[in-house]
Amino acid sequence: MNNYCGTSRIAGCQFTLYPMSDNFVDIILSALNEVDTSKVWKDTDDVSTCIRGKMVHIFDVTKAIFLHAAKTGEHVAMSGTFSIGCPGDTDADVYMDETDHPLNEEKAASINQQAGCKFALYPMGREDYMDAIYEQIDLSKSRGVEVSHSHYATRLDGDVHHIFRAMEESFVSVQEVVSHVTMTFSISANSPSNK
Amino acid sequence: MNNYCGTSRIAGCQFTLYPMSDNFVDIILSALNEVDTSKVWKDTDDVSTCIRGKMVHIFDVTKAIFLHAAKTGEHVAMSGTFSIGCPGDTDADVYMDETDHPLNEEKAASINQQAGCKFALYPMGREDYMDAIYEQIDLSKSRGVEVSHSHYATRLDGDVHHIFRAMEESFVSVQEVVSHVTMTFSISANSPSNK
Repeated sequence: MNNYCGTSRIAGCQFTLYPMSDNFVDIILSALNEVDTSKVWKDTDDVSTCIRGKMVHIFDVTKAIFLHAAKTGEHVAMSGTFSIGCPGDTDADVYMDETDHPLNEEKAASINQQAGCKFALYPMGREDYMDAIYEQIDLSKSRGVEVSHSHYATRLDGDVHHIFRAMEESFVSVQEVVSHVTMTFSISANSPSNK
Repeated sequence: MNNYCGTSRIAGCQFTLYPMSDNFVDIILSALNEVDTSKVWKDTDDVSTCIRGKMVHIFDVTKAIFLHAAKTGEHVAMSGTFSIGCPGDTDADVYMDETDHPLNEEKAASINQQAGCKFALYPMGREDYMDAIYEQIDLSKSRGVEVSHSHYATRLDGDVHHIFRAMEESFVSVQEVVSHVTMTFSISANSPSNK
């Protein structure tokens, strides 16, 4: 169970991109085409995509796919679950040898996109899991995002880069003190309800 | 913290319906229009909808919304998180006085719709959470669904009624032994990848 303990534990994300458009196939394929996924293990079916590898690349790839889809101007959403330390994981070990340099940051950096996002952190196997959440997460330090609370989730509003950075920082903080952590998220851009 | 212990604890679901169509607004509104949500507390914003109340109505409403959207024949998906026993919950207590009769089952029963769904159960605050999952869930008894396993999730394929019944049975079983349980799901129908 301790195969991945230490500084480079394998992380993953099971996610789906949802373009609310007749052109959803093109939007998904062109977003994927613009994103370099060579540093993560990847598996896609008709329900979702799973990527696995180093944390830095998991966040880099999911953010880039969302940004390249959202820049079409269509109403697009993405939801999924980040996970680290799940007992029993073995696939994709080879991707842990990749360097930490994110492949998509440079190209994605120029895309300015506002979004709304709800996320929730679940530290597993700890009786004091609520304390782990409260102690580790200080979203007041998250620059560029407006933080609000709703049932079962925390809402972040702002630029997509800032939203993903706040989520990544929260996830990284909690997994430093809890072995198995999952984090659900649902992010939405260009919604007509928001105009 | 024990306000809701016993036979009628308040449950909830934070979910989003995603029609992959230019007509997404109409599909969402017409699905909502066909579903009776009067037995649950409901709050919607541009990212997601949250409903709260008795477990039976939470599953009844989410399934009915998905079915009424999917029957349009468009590629539609829904993802979300069911939750029960979250410490600190208070809203929507009044809805716990409703009877157990599901309001949408009769109308929804006639809709036959195949789908694929990935779900994951998270029993919170228990060091033996993996055991809680394995002991309580016996999907081999779930009629009408094909069960397979993927990273971070269990996949169910079959009729939407059977899929939701399998998820509800799993959720009900685990919350009987663990106070705070969440369950993520992502369900997809009419995907062109599946034809």
